[in-house]
Amino acid sequence: MTAYMLRPIGRVESPLTERAAAPRQPDEGAPDAWLVFDDRYAPALDGLAAGTDVLVLTWLDRADRDTLTVHPRGDTGRPLTGVLATRAPDRPNPIGLHTVHILDIAGTRVHVRSLEALDATPVLDVKPLLTAHR
Amino acid sequence: MTAYMLRPIGRVESPLTERAAAPRQPDEGAPDAWLVFDDRYAPALDGLAAGTDVLVLTWLDRADRDTLTVHPRGDTGRPLTGVLATRAPDRPNPIGLHTVHILDIAGTRVHVRSLEALDATPVLDVKPLLTAHR
Repeated sequence: MTAYMLRPIGRVESPLTERAAAPRQPDEGAPDAWLVFDDRYAPALDGLAAGTDVLVLTWLDRADRDTLTVHPRGDTGRPLTGVLATRAPDRPNPIGLHTVHILDIAGTRVHVRSLEALDATPVLDVKPLLTAHR
Repeated sequence: MTAYMLRPIGRVESPLTERAAAPRQPDEGAPDAWLVFDDRYAPALDGLAAGTDVLVLTWLDRADRDTLTVHPRGDTGRPLTGVLATRAPDRPNPIGLHTVHILDIAGTRVHVRSLEALDATPVLDVKPLLTAHR
């Protein structure tokens, strides 16, 4: 099948630097972080607002793309499960999906609450939340 | 910034073939469709179940990646808005995000309800819905 090239539009700035220390979900102690966008994408940010929740899509660049099954949450007491039925970062296309609250926007820097992505993780996209369809 | 290569894991089979005719959201008349996965990814599907809702990530391969601002929903009466504050398909990394109900699973073919993606759209990922974090 045809392959497609992603072009990151920004990076995460976070105190999280090691995968082993990263929380699995944002309610498990994820720190606030900055989304730092490349200047060329500034027009694409117009309409984002502090105080709202958005979806952030990232590229989990330290994931293993050849993993097809995992023990959920790394618990070997749980049976091996296909990665598409889990939120494990290791998967063929390791796209991270994060619901975050925007705390502040300063030019092309967006401050968000509780993001479980590692420092320097590429940012691919931001989308508004839809009530009926998220 | 470094670019990354997506490897589609399957394709959409749908009666929708023209972008102009495609609904903008699944509750606007989207048809049922099949997600047809490449055989090599069969182990990654283990754990998906008919009767459940999942997130499907697609690559909107007919989108324009150079568009940074749009009139929401194509309505020129609405002001130009950054694509990251909209769900427009035209955006730097046109990743489609769809919440679907699984009707049936037959091997590597997964039948889903109301998918607004066009026929032959590449499938990138499937993720379970999380109550707190979708």
